[in-house]
Amino acid sequence: MTEASSAAARARTLFAMQTQFLRPASDSAPSRIDHPAFRQKVVSAEEAVRWIQPGHTVAISGFASAGTPKAITPALAERIGAARAAGTDFTVNLLTGASVSAETERMLSEVAGISLRMPYQAEPTARRNINSGRMDYVDIHLSHVAQQVWEGYYGHVDVAVVEVSGVTETGELIPSASIGNNKTWLDVAEKVILEVNSWVPAAMTGIHDVYYGTALPPHRKPIMLTDVEDRIGQSTFRVDPDKVVAVVETHARDSASPLTPPDAVSRAIAAHVLDFFEHEVSRGRLPADSLLPLQSGIGNVANAVLQGLDAGPHKGLTCYSEVIQDGMLHLIKHGTVRFASATSLALSEAGIDELVSNIDFYREHIVLRPQEISNHPEIVRRLGIIAMNGMLEADIYGNVNSTHVMGTKIMNGIGGSGDFARNGYLSMFLSPSTAKGGSISSIVPMVPHVDHTEHDVQVLVTEQGLADLRGLSPRRRARVVVDNCAHPDYRDMLHDYVDRAEAVPDAGHTPHLLGESLSFHQRFLQTGSMLAQ
Amino acid sequence: MTEASSAAARARTLFAMQTQFLRPASDSAPSRIDHPAFRQKVVSAEEAVRWIQPGHTVAISGFASAGTPKAITPALAERIGAARAAGTDFTVNLLTGASVSAETERMLSEVAGISLRMPYQAEPTARRNINSGRMDYVDIHLSHVAQQVWEGYYGHVDVAVVEVSGVTETGELIPSASIGNNKTWLDVAEKVILEVNSWVPAAMTGIHDVYYGTALPPHRKPIMLTDVEDRIGQSTFRVDPDKVVAVVETHARDSASPLTPPDAVSRAIAAHVLDFFEHEVSRGRLPADSLLPLQSGIGNVANAVLQGLDAGPHKGLTCYSEVIQDGMLHLIKHGTVRFASATSLALSEAGIDELVSNIDFYREHIVLRPQEISNHPEIVRRLGIIAMNGMLEADIYGNVNSTHVMGTKIMNGIGGSGDFARNGYLSMFLSPSTAKGGSISSIVPMVPHVDHTEHDVQVLVTEQGLADLRGLSPRRRARVVVDNCAHPDYRDMLHDYVDRAEAVPDAGHTPHLLGESLSFHQRFLQTGSMLAQ
Repeated sequence: MTEASSAAARARTLFAMQTQFLRPASDSAPSRIDHPAFRQKVVSAEEAVRWIQPGHTVAISGFASAGTPKAITPALAERIGAARAAGTDFTVNLLTGASVSAETERMLSEVAGISLRMPYQAEPTARRNINSGRMDYVDIHLSHVAQQVWEGYYGHVDVAVVEVSGVTETGELIPSASIGNNKTWLDVAEKVILEVNSWVPAAMTGIHDVYYGTALPPHRKPIMLTDVEDRIGQSTFRVDPDKVVAVVETHARDSASPLTPPDAVSRAIAAHVLDFFEHEVSRGRLPADSLLPLQSGIGNVANAVLQGLDAGPHKGLTCYSEVIQDGMLHLIKHGTVRFASATSLALSEAGIDELVSNIDFYREHIVLRPQEISNHPEIVRRLGIIAMNGMLEADIYGNVNSTHVMGTKIMNGIGGSGDFARNGYLSMFLSPSTAKGGSISSIVPMVPHVDHTEHDVQVLVTEQGLADLRGLSPRRRARVVVDNCAHPDYRDMLHDYVDRAEAVPDAGHTPHLLGESLSFHQRFLQTGSMLAQ
Repeated sequence: MTEASSAAARARTLFAMQTQFLRPASDSAPSRIDHPAFRQKVVSAEEAVRWIQPGHTVAISGFASAGTPKAITPALAERIGAARAAGTDFTVNLLTGASVSAETERMLSEVAGISLRMPYQAEPTARRNINSGRMDYVDIHLSHVAQQVWEGYYGHVDVAVVEVSGVTETGELIPSASIGNNKTWLDVAEKVILEVNSWVPAAMTGIHDVYYGTALPPHRKPIMLTDVEDRIGQSTFRVDPDKVVAVVETHARDSASPLTPPDAVSRAIAAHVLDFFEHEVSRGRLPADSLLPLQSGIGNVANAVLQGLDAGPHKGLTCYSEVIQDGMLHLIKHGTVRFASATSLALSEAGIDELVSNIDFYREHIVLRPQEISNHPEIVRRLGIIAMNGMLEADIYGNVNSTHVMGTKIMNGIGGSGDFARNGYLSMFLSPSTAKGGSISSIVPMVPHVDHTEHDVQVLVTEQGLADLRGLSPRRRARVVVDNCAHPDYRDMLHDYVDRAEAVPDAGHTPHLLGESLSFHQRFLQTGSMLAQ
């Protein structure tokens, strides 16, 4: 069995596993397609996927684990695998909202079906293909995606595959559990394939706010959103029905995001963040009652911060972020959070159940928007977001690497962290002080890849402590970062580096010993640990 | 003579040189102070400067060469120098718009009078003090300055020293030749010293648009500016008269910005930029008639681009930038540019004469705004700015170093380049391919300091050619950057690096040889040239 035919077999198996959750149109539940022209286009996934040809640029729905097409992806992986097995090359360029369901990335990556991927991924198979140079990956700010596709930087978008939860009588599309770039995909693609997923609760209708006021310059207008709960758009997508070439009916549960419960380290990080909020309130720099709208990345540190807030003094908090995680549902339920705006849900199995069971309540406290609005520089600046994002490592001067392990291997991507860090009110980066059992320090002399520059990083937090870099020159930052954030095992090495770099005559604004600045990483590559032997 | 008393002597001489251009209130020209309460506060600069005490945070007017206080600075340098000579330590924290007049930086730096400087400087004496660690320097995005000072990151602002061109009957202040952060300084400072400079043409009144609609979150509203020529504010500053502790009358010409005529290299860079514009127009990505609003840095490359535009097909262009240079006046005069928005003038002596002689014409085509508006993320994104900024160096993956020579020594600062590059429509970075007679390549394997990340750099231009990085993965970028932008003397070395970095098994998304990635810089530090010996 060749690698290609083996991958094709795997895709077939996955397809079979996946489609057992898919419901044909003839099932007992009433169809979600209330418009005859769309109903006439209902076909199987295998038929629909024939519209996708080798070399196509395919834009799919999905942001984090929610709203990814369920039926087309396995059918496409099978089609590509079969073509490969028959000796035909078949790749597509894949555009998404951000990460999509892990199965989607894996299935398409296993058949080497993606030549170019944009703008974000977080899946091991895709990551391997990118790091081996077999898949092109373009890692851009999430707020830039819609604009750049409109501008034509990614060429013609041949096919959009968008999951929706229904089609109205007038031919409008009811979004499913994420919005992402779907509005843009429906507008720019030459052909559209819809997946109508009847699993999405009908009562979710109306949670969405799709803003159609964006444009390319010189035609842009102010976006009149001044509070996280403002609605400035409509509850549905529009689509030119003539572009819709196929409609596939599904009844498939959304993928779940793994829920990582906070451990001692993440709780310690959260405690420093919460202390800092109180400090800022006491200095009059944050509103005492409801702080400012919170943005936080995904993961156990973020969940620990949310848990901590739930036990804290603030009520009526707001969030303006990319995703709603389980912790956010708790905060909303307890009244700690008054309102949350996002572009997607990233819930665990239990979180999905909680949302679906209480959708009438949550719909009053959550809005899902296009990611060009959830991450828009104009809105992020106006609302004064408190941006809390994870990082791989920071250097002593406050430059942050969010993406590249040892400077070369992509982990996930920058996602929206830059949108929030640059234009927000407070930009905080959070990480445990070490990784891999202590063999990696997340505080290093110089990061070998920069995603957030010293000009954009105001606060660094590890379980060791918090470094407030605002208003500090680089030399002062170095002392604070090492003393407050570095793990004790690395502190002496870092102090030694700082001391010797500063001791060079005319050491400069940002002292470095270029021959040693990346030595922590070189040592790890050579010995498996950043610690001196 | 001690160093301190020598510096004090120099300050006295400079003060004498400077003040010969200053006009006392009793001079023949009518006073520009039309409000009695302000007229009563007229004092000499020596008297006024007594309000400034050791340890004070002093916020002064000035952006580029225009609008810096003319009388207080030399008086302050003298006061500091005298204190030093008497054995008393005397430093202040100095906040500005951006760079201020070179004399200001030099005088205060020579007496070691500044302990902290924010947000931008471009003067050799200040640079030396920063690089030797004797002056703290905080280099932040210009759009962040007003907000961060309001937020209190720089503590209490004790004294604002603001040059204006007049005081109206109702006590409003008519700005002079720059706006910068003056609105903010007047609002936040505990005490205000005004310099009323009657040299500024009275006919310049009305060129300014001072927007008072900004606020700290959660009270921010949309900024209703949708065209570069929109006026959204008022023509004057407001000030609480009780805070004004002194008024000094001056009649002093603004400092001039040196005009560097385009050479062959800058003309070649400009030609690539202009070709690229036509390419983008032909692809429908830029409006054919007037492109989109241009932003460009200061210097001979920027001037060459402006000259090239003057000879090109576009009429009715617009600019939305920080400064108006001489070249812009020509473009406005010829009708090539319909309107230019900036926060300051940065004109040569001839340019100042041109503007002053034809102020009634230019006032119809130029508006000066606060820098929080000229650089505002909301406006930069909405207008779709074409951002053209200089750089020190770029690496093969498109990361740009704008500030640190060999990664350690500050040159000037990031200024507004990040405001425009991150949030604009097109982000271009321009530089000759070599410096110091060919001993420095501006294309290197890895930049030792990052001001603009790979996510923010779309186009690199040297006299060798243009690299369009949009939509390219890092490995593809490397080929394009080396082939199109590197000087031929360095191309083989760079190709060799790229080849060997990619040849490493599992080389990663962004291949690097960490032990060699900074070798160009190390070689320069060791041998005086990046070229292999």
